Amino acid sequence: MQTSETLEKVAEELAKLPSIGRKTANRIAMYLAKSPAEEVVNLSDALLQLKDKIRLCSVCCNITESEICSICDSAKRSSASICIVEEPGDVFAIEKTNEFKGKYHVLHGIISPLDGIGPEDIKVKELLMRLSGDVEEVILALNPSVEGEYTITYLSKLIKPLNIKISRIARGIPVGTDLEYADEITIAKAIEGRITL
Amino acid sequence: MQTSETLEKVAEELAKLPSIGRKTANRIAMYLAKSPAEEVVNLSDALLQLKDKIRLCSVCCNITESEICSICDSAKRSSASICIVEEPGDVFAIEKTNEFKGKYHVLHGIISPLDGIGPEDIKVKELLMRLSGDVEEVILALNPSVEGEYTITYLSKLIKPLNIKISRIARGIPVGTDLEYADEITIAKAIEGRITL
Repeated sequence: MQTSETLEKVAEELAKLPSIGRKTANRIAMYLAKSPAEEVVNLSDALLQLKDKIRLCSVCCNITESEICSICDSAKRSSASICIVEEPGDVFAIEKTNEFKGKYHVLHGIISPLDGIGPEDIKVKELLMRLSGDVEEVILALNPSVEGEYTITYLSKLIKPLNIKISRIARGIPVGTDLEYADEITIAKAIEGRITL
Repeated sequence: MQTSETLEKVAEELAKLPSIGRKTANRIAMYLAKSPAEEVVNLSDALLQLKDKIRLCSVCCNITESEICSICDSAKRSSASICIVEEPGDVFAIEKTNEFKGKYHVLHGIISPLDGIGPEDIKVKELLMRLSGDVEEVILALNPSVEGEYTITYLSKLIKPLNIKISRIARGIPVGTDLEYADEITIAKAIEGRITL
């Protein structure tokens, strides 16, 4: 790379992205240097548009290009059920299952006292503003980490007085894995959350 | 991703790059959507500059930003020895070893009759133009693939009449691996290329 500063710069910028190490960044930079100009311009343009067009839905705080996202705007989705997630990527992951027909709320983070992230740093205020009228159920689909548990406790204390049903998604053995490879906490939670047949 | 076409487009463009699958592309797009605008603009700019500034060295055909690359231009590097590689990335890999003090020639491909790639499609003509005067040795550092072997045979036939010493880099057991995991062809080549102590 020492023969071109520009190539070095591209590799450096790419290496800042998640899942891309320095070696992969070099490989991609080299690939782009050999690609047709059109392909590189397309990528560069798409990136610029990202910052121009993207905003947060004024209802659920998910990423969108309009005032209200397509899920919040859809008449087919029930407003009675709200699924709370940490990041926009989690909405995508749940949508792929085609299991959930309600709406979402994206917190954009999780309460983490150790990192100095409190409820006012994530979209909790926006959530509470929605929890009136026709909302019957809230599903907490947060990651099962220490911070996730903390946030679940915090939110359920806030929501319970509103007389809304609260649930959290199940912790258990992932489909397709062997019980013997699961850690003891996961197994314990799977037993605790057993379903009567 | 269905809530933003722009995000979808970025992920699509990223997924075209080597070593990036669709899931990683989604993750990176989501990460960029949340990053400061400056970071995204930097990446986008670096990509655009790539196509503007980059050219091939008129001597060795390596990627550079000037007429002649820094290696060809260096007085510290011997012109008597030329190391022939397939791609610009190979120059980078060899330079990291600090072992080679001569100059390079980048073929930008390899002869592959099955894919319809002949000597005229890669930088063989440019190589032959250099092989006069003070060149004493040519090192073939091509990948040990079928096409690599074919190209080595082809080039050595071309170069031999010029009275220049030709060598190829050794095939053998990679440092740090176990002999028992190496394939039989590699072991055979390692025995064939044994060095007297």
